[in-house]
Amino acid sequence: MDDACYKLCEKLVPKNYIQQGQNAKSIHQSKIRHLLEQRRIPEEGWDDQTIELFLGELAIMDSNNFPDNCGVGEREARIYSSLVSKRHFRLGHGIGRSGEITAVQPKAAGSSLIMTLTNSLALHAIKLSGIQASSCFVVPMATGMSIALSLLSLKQKRPNAKYVLWPRIDQKSCIKSIVTSGFELVVIENVREGEELRTNLEEIQRKVQELGAGNILCILTTTSCFAPRVPDKLEEIGEICKSQDIPHVVNNAYGLQCSKCTHLIQQASRSRLDVFVQSTDKNFMVPVGGSIIAGFDDNLIRHISKCYPGRASSSPSTDLLITLLSMGVKGYKDLLKERKSNYKALQEKLSECAKKHGERLLSTPHNGISMGMSLQTFQCNTEEAVTDLGSKLFTRLVSGTRVIPTDGKKSEICGRTFTSFGAHCDDYGSPYLTAAAAIGMTSQDIDLFITRLDKVLTKSAKTKDSNQVDS
Amino acid sequence: MDDACYKLCEKLVPKNYIQQGQNAKSIHQSKIRHLLEQRRIPEEGWDDQTIELFLGELAIMDSNNFPDNCGVGEREARIYSSLVSKRHFRLGHGIGRSGEITAVQPKAAGSSLIMTLTNSLALHAIKLSGIQASSCFVVPMATGMSIALSLLSLKQKRPNAKYVLWPRIDQKSCIKSIVTSGFELVVIENVREGEELRTNLEEIQRKVQELGAGNILCILTTTSCFAPRVPDKLEEIGEICKSQDIPHVVNNAYGLQCSKCTHLIQQASRSRLDVFVQSTDKNFMVPVGGSIIAGFDDNLIRHISKCYPGRASSSPSTDLLITLLSMGVKGYKDLLKERKSNYKALQEKLSECAKKHGERLLSTPHNGISMGMSLQTFQCNTEEAVTDLGSKLFTRLVSGTRVIPTDGKKSEICGRTFTSFGAHCDDYGSPYLTAAAAIGMTSQDIDLFITRLDKVLTKSAKTKDSNQVDS
Amino acid sequence: MDDACYKLCEKLVPKNYIQQGQNAKSIHQSKIRHLLEQRRIPEEGWDDQTIELFLGELAIMDSNNFPDNCGVGEREARIYSSLVSKRHFRLGHGIGRSGEITAVQPKAAGSSLIMTLTNSLALHAIKLSGIQASSCFVVPMATGMSIALSLLSLKQKRPNAKYVLWPRIDQKSCIKSIVTSGFELVVIENVREGEELRTNLEEIQRKVQELGAGNILCILTTTSCFAPRVPDKLEEIGEICKSQDIPHVVNNAYGLQCSKCTHLIQQASRSRLDVFVQSTDKNFMVPVGGSIIAGFDDNLIRHISKCYPGRASSSPSTDLLITLLSMGVKGYKDLLKERKSNYKALQEKLSECAKKHGERLLSTPHNGISMGMSLQTFQCNTEEAVTDLGSKLFTRLVSGTRVIPTDGKKSEICGRTFTSFGAHCDDYGSPYLTAAAAIGMTSQDIDLFITRLDKVLTKSAKTKDSNQVDS
Amino acid sequence: MDDACYKLCEKLVPKNYIQQGQNAKSIHQSKIRHLLEQRRIPEEGWDDQTIELFLGELAIMDSNNFPDNCGVGEREARIYSSLVSKRHFRLGHGIGRSGEITAVQPKAAGSSLIMTLTNSLALHAIKLSGIQASSCFVVPMATGMSIALSLLSLKQKRPNAKYVLWPRIDQKSCIKSIVTSGFELVVIENVREGEELRTNLEEIQRKVQELGAGNILCILTTTSCFAPRVPDKLEEIGEICKSQDIPHVVNNAYGLQCSKCTHLIQQASRSRLDVFVQSTDKNFMVPVGGSIIAGFDDNLIRHISKCYPGRASSSPSTDLLITLLSMGVKGYKDLLKERKSNYKALQEKLSECAKKHGERLLSTPHNGISMGMSLQTFQCNTEEAVTDLGSKLFTRLVSGTRVIPTDGKKSEICGRTFTSFGAHCDDYGSPYLTAAAAIGMTSQDIDLFITRLDKVLTKSAKTKDSNQVDS
Repeated sequence: MDDACYKLCEKLVPKNYIQQGQNAKSIHQSKIRHLLEQRRIPEEGWDDQTIELFLGELAIMDSNNFPDNCGVGEREARIYSSLVSKRHFRLGHGIGRSGEITAVQPKAAGSSLIMTLTNSLALHAIKLSGIQASSCFVVPMATGMSIALSLLSLKQKRPNAKYVLWPRIDQKSCIKSIVTSGFELVVIENVREGEELRTNLEEIQRKVQELGAGNILCILTTTSCFAPRVPDKLEEIGEICKSQDIPHVVNNAYGLQCSKCTHLIQQASRSRLDVFVQSTDKNFMVPVGGSIIAGFDDNLIRHISKCYPGRASSSPSTDLLITLLSMGVKGYKDLLKERKSNYKALQEKLSECAKKHGERLLSTPHNGISMGMSLQTFQCNTEEAVTDLGSKLFTRLVSGTRVIPTDGKKSEICGRTFTSFGAHCDDYGSPYLTAAAAIGMTSQDIDLFITRLDKVLTKSAKTKDSNQVDS
Repeated sequence: MDDACYKLCEKLVPKNYIQQGQNAKSIHQSKIRHLLEQRRIPEEGWDDQTIELFLGELAIMDSNNFPDNCGVGEREARIYSSLVSKRHFRLGHGIGRSGEITAVQPKAAGSSLIMTLTNSLALHAIKLSGIQASSCFVVPMATGMSIALSLLSLKQKRPNAKYVLWPRIDQKSCIKSIVTSGFELVVIENVREGEELRTNLEEIQRKVQELGAGNILCILTTTSCFAPRVPDKLEEIGEICKSQDIPHVVNNAYGLQCSKCTHLIQQASRSRLDVFVQSTDKNFMVPVGGSIIAGFDDNLIRHISKCYPGRASSSPSTDLLITLLSMGVKGYKDLLKERKSNYKALQEKLSECAKKHGERLLSTPHNGISMGMSLQTFQCNTEEAVTDLGSKLFTRLVSGTRVIPTDGKKSEICGRTFTSFGAHCDDYGSPYLTAAAAIGMTSQDIDLFITRLDKVLTKSAKTKDSNQVDS
Repeated sequence: MDDACYKLCEKLVPKNYIQQGQNAKSIHQSKIRHLLEQRRIPEEGWDDQTIELFLGELAIMDSNNFPDNCGVGEREARIYSSLVSKRHFRLGHGIGRSGEITAVQPKAAGSSLIMTLTNSLALHAIKLSGIQASSCFVVPMATGMSIALSLLSLKQKRPNAKYVLWPRIDQKSCIKSIVTSGFELVVIENVREGEELRTNLEEIQRKVQELGAGNILCILTTTSCFAPRVPDKLEEIGEICKSQDIPHVVNNAYGLQCSKCTHLIQQASRSRLDVFVQSTDKNFMVPVGGSIIAGFDDNLIRHISKCYPGRASSSPSTDLLITLLSMGVKGYKDLLKERKSNYKALQEKLSECAKKHGERLLSTPHNGISMGMSLQTFQCNTEEAVTDLGSKLFTRLVSGTRVIPTDGKKSEICGRTFTSFGAHCDDYGSPYLTAAAAIGMTSQDIDLFITRLDKVLTKSAKTKDSNQVDS
Repeated sequence: MDDACYKLCEKLVPKNYIQQGQNAKSIHQSKIRHLLEQRRIPEEGWDDQTIELFLGELAIMDSNNFPDNCGVGEREARIYSSLVSKRHFRLGHGIGRSGEITAVQPKAAGSSLIMTLTNSLALHAIKLSGIQASSCFVVPMATGMSIALSLLSLKQKRPNAKYVLWPRIDQKSCIKSIVTSGFELVVIENVREGEELRTNLEEIQRKVQELGAGNILCILTTTSCFAPRVPDKLEEIGEICKSQDIPHVVNNAYGLQCSKCTHLIQQASRSRLDVFVQSTDKNFMVPVGGSIIAGFDDNLIRHISKCYPGRASSSPSTDLLITLLSMGVKGYKDLLKERKSNYKALQEKLSECAKKHGERLLSTPHNGISMGMSLQTFQCNTEEAVTDLGSKLFTRLVSGTRVIPTDGKKSEICGRTFTSFGAHCDDYGSPYLTAAAAIGMTSQDIDLFITRLDKVLTKSAKTKDSNQVDS
């Protein structure tokens, strides 16, 4: 309602009551104005009322909602189902144009504002997480697909390059992102340092020499990963990339939430780090669907955004926008703090549980999210045993643990053979189980997990014992 | 509520009333059962109550909603904002796994059912549209990006191929899909037949000879397009592809809604047509965000689906599922019929309006969606004139028309120079304006458009006259 | 967003796109302004987007939503459940104050606006229906309870009156409204004129003489009713009331939708008609819950509104406001027209069906909503037969028909004995079945009803025949 | 989904994943079953998913949602606006029948279940609050209107009674409930004991003698009230009622939340207490709109429920049902506990603030919700001063405080003159300000209130000083 409306209201309800209402309205307005001005996550999170008001205002600005619009194009954002329309706050035009995913649409000022604001807020979130990136954009694709897009973009600047050097990380989507984009995967096997699996720098340097820097599209490193693998040595790799003029792309899937990962990225940016990609759902508690492509060179990031052909779903951007507005800087920082303390609590309790069963927590100090517990006294060197322990936990509604055997099994991934795929190396030496303390975890999750794990292990031990008696 | 619940209800409310309620429930149930059994679009559309009931049941099956779940993984579909959770019906796990976008997720039976059902229903919709495809999947990416993914997938089977033959269609995303995926664009300029711009088959054959079939990744043709360009000669190109063993990929962006396009695809499938890609929003009235990759060879389509690295947004699938359930076969067919009659009505009224202003409707009988009106008496051969006429229509809330000048201007698209980009050829000869009758258009849209166009043309004519007087 | 916000938007998205969005916003604004100015139902119905925008603005004005409010009272409209909050658009303060149900609340400017606007729009709707009332208010109570409130209010002005003269209408809530408010029910039995049951004016006059006008609180007449009873002779009764100085209260439960009823009220207002009460759900297609107390004397209606002790639910007002805004004048008139034509269609088809089974439509030209079909050839003079035919229709999902036997059964209602309760008279002579064409009925309802009735009658006839053979 | 559906799902998604989903479903089912079985508030509150599932199931059972229903009655719960339909979970039939507000409706098994379950859960809540009532029902009317209904119901059993004895409580709705129902108000002025205003038992006994017990409809007492008035002496009045055979009705508006009030009711039930009425919004944090009529004699409560003429809004019942399911026994008890501790905190901080300004907290140990702070040093003996202090607090967004002057002003309420209306007595002696610690209050409310009050008092003191200097 504008001033004229409020004036009219004063004929129906006493002026001073209306003015209080108008004041309340102006508080919401000023939050919105502040957002448009600063394009940063608000210090205090917004309540849903302000968020809905804002989204309602944006929806009004899209042409498919214009009361008098007539559409004679091939794409007019007509929405058939009111259920669908409602869940998108009546927004239908998506983000970007065929020219560029970060371009504004003439038909959709509201959707364009969502896109551009979300990108600004995402950059702010990255900075709050500890990385002084200069540019980023949200793209409605999986992290792996976004890495593929980044690699393909780099290709345009290095037309002859065909190799991607890749310190091994056993996630199919990483391999797929390289293979799908048509490059040749050069696996750099990890080395074991203590109980950690770490980057083999020598091997990287050797491969650079062997293949020739000019033939290498980039080195694709990883931060967040399952223990006992730990984040790659980004700084040292950055130095190699800098000296050899090789692009450096980082898979930072769920690393924003962990200062160990963001610190590495920030440090590596001093030498060379071109692009780092992360998931929106894993870092910001939104549904699966988007990732953030970020970097320190505006032109490069802009170039990547221009490589996405077509207009894309605004759903992941909208989810992220709502969530960041709702969290506020304080809420986000609290979540990061809480995650850190949950990590410590999980370590302690898992360590205790391990000891009780004659096992131990693997020592992986460089991994700040995931941890491993040895399973030496359990018969986990066979696939069946893994399946067994894993499925017992699954049945008890524990999701997210992985049991890694030491069976040395061969697997073919994208036409390439890996030994002990899942273990990040051919032979780690002993079987183990992993668990992670990710953002949004609660202390109740930890307690339930430990209780159920304890039960499963106790039962497995008994079975084992009775099996031994039997044999 | 199960039988036990209904029995208990009978203690509170007379049995026969409860039984009627239970009967009503069973009607909803049987619709759901029928869907799971047939995996086809229901004949009669469902009402929102059944749809919400069904989605509610599916959400219950995802682990993030399990009352007793404890999550210790890095991705647990925790959703921070209740606004976001609600709009996704509490579903957060997305679709696919890192291995494959059509794979089911252990943590998310409900989301997996959405994915697999949507793919089945999309295939049914394609068949209803007139194409007897054998396989398809919905992917949360723009049509252009999906074409890129398809090209990259083909590359794995044709590692040495590097050219994409492309009958010119002036949409940036098409060019971008080729360039981004790292291939070399080979433009086949259209030929003018009557007032239509059509495929130059001789030039294609010449290029195949010149470049060598084995070096050609595929021929990328287009069905739906702006008049006076018309759908490519798919059948003839299919023959070439078959005889030369070159893959044939079709950009069917908004062609499902038009039997002229689907007929071409169906016919070409007899010779060779590997993949055809279409937008979900342009064909099914859902928000922008998804496309359907379809074909006649299950293995090929499966192969493409395996190339997407990572887990993806379920939003476009959910939108499509809701919409197809809501439309029903009848609703969808009615929409197709209505579009066809709208097309005729638009032709007639635009023709009339054209005559009134000394212009004429371009004769483009092969294009069943878009049409052009000549602008010879208007000064549209300069960019300003275009901008002027276009912006006048834009200001009058007409969205979707395009005014095409004959200025012969050079544009650089993805590092490549085009003359008169937007006109699909270097020199069409005369300026024109386009309009389209797309699915969901109403007769009110047509009337408003004609009225406003008439006003703008009348006004422009006057200005022109007075300008002439002045000069 | 205010002008400052739009200015800021122009830094993010080109000015002309933002301006179009701002224009769209101003269209919504001007609708709201117009409403506040005119306080009438808009000519064209609003779309949900404008309605939600408006309700959102109103919610902001209630103190429970003030971002900085601190509440130290006993009633602060805190809402525990977000599900509940959401369904009330975050409004919690209800309507009215302890002093008066139409009073505004200092804590709740938004809710107060809903209350006052709804009352204005309801008055407009009454006028559109054909009654030039001067004042009304919506109260969240059943029609019967609202009649009771009206009677109690009249009592304050006629402290010695204790009788309510009441032309018989066999609905429990009417009787209850009189008995509950502590008055003595004086039943005026109807007389049969042709096949209609009509008001016995002589008996009314006789009773007035017998009891003394001063002892009579009011005559409570009825418009809308089940055939073969027809609306009371309001004009003639109005004359009696005027000449004898007796208040005249009309139960117009679902009469607003029927010009036959509204015409009677309008005519009677020339002689004497103090208050007429109608249901919101029966006339305006909102959920059960409210009624409108209306009249031609502002002071009287105001007086009644002051008799409601306490603050009341705003739910029925909100529902009515949304609905009237959504319908618009056009939509409401269309519904009235459609109902009228449905009434004719139902008459024709029911008549036909009746003939087929050797029965006939009762001739009740004064009743414009309900109609009766004779059941002379059916054995409906026993309660079992009624239950049987009624329950067969109920089982076939026909709701709303009533089968009236001629069993002369005695029933006690509120301590008073009635013969053949449900038939509006002691002995109508023959059994019958009723059906009504109420607002919102569809032609599909009619067809389904006739089909199912035909089946049930056919089956019953057969049973009857075989029974006769048996006996 | 039923078993057949799940079986079909297993063809699409592996069996063990489906089974986990089915298990999750059965957890929701068992909660619902337990509710239907026990008809008590669940120990642990339900999450919104279970609540929505349950309401969805109930909506399916109402005839307006039957897929095949055809309605030919005058009331078919057709809902025009989808916004309205949605906010009522598609329920439209309301609660009760014309015969009785607690009767089930043949057309609406779902709504009937809501009604009957809500009444059961409300009774459970009353018991949890400390009153062993035997029967109650929720009615969609203000507390005052519900008291009126109760009085009118009693009238039917005491046709000659016309007086209501009423220990003075200065709330208009109380007076109005008596006057509206047509009874004569007999005011029993309170006596001051210490700083409390308490029941004058002698005066009650004197009045009973004077008027004759048989002429007295009931004694209407009050529990929850603004300090320095305290709850009436219910036990002693109960004794009088018992010995004299006079009904005893209690206005327990917001007393359920306070054990001081509920204890009094429980104790008085041993002698005589017929009906006690309370607000749903004030006790259970739902929007304004309903009250609960409760007592210890099933027949009496049933009798009152039969006096409501017509079918009523189900909105307040639905809100209460959702809220109680959402709170659970634990949540409700926690809220009661929290309120108690907030009361103490408010006392302490208000006392401190009072001292700072040369005032004191009034000693009113019998009032467990409201408290008063003296305003002797402030010029509050004039209406302007009250308005001034009150409006300053109002402007600072403090809602719910009342400033009571000692101006001895006469007011006319329902035709009766009161001195110092609002002070519960003619002359309390000194002005004061009240504040309350009601359910749902937060410690932030308290802190904001104290801060703002302190500012206002400081400023007022300065103004006062400067005024004195001036004069």
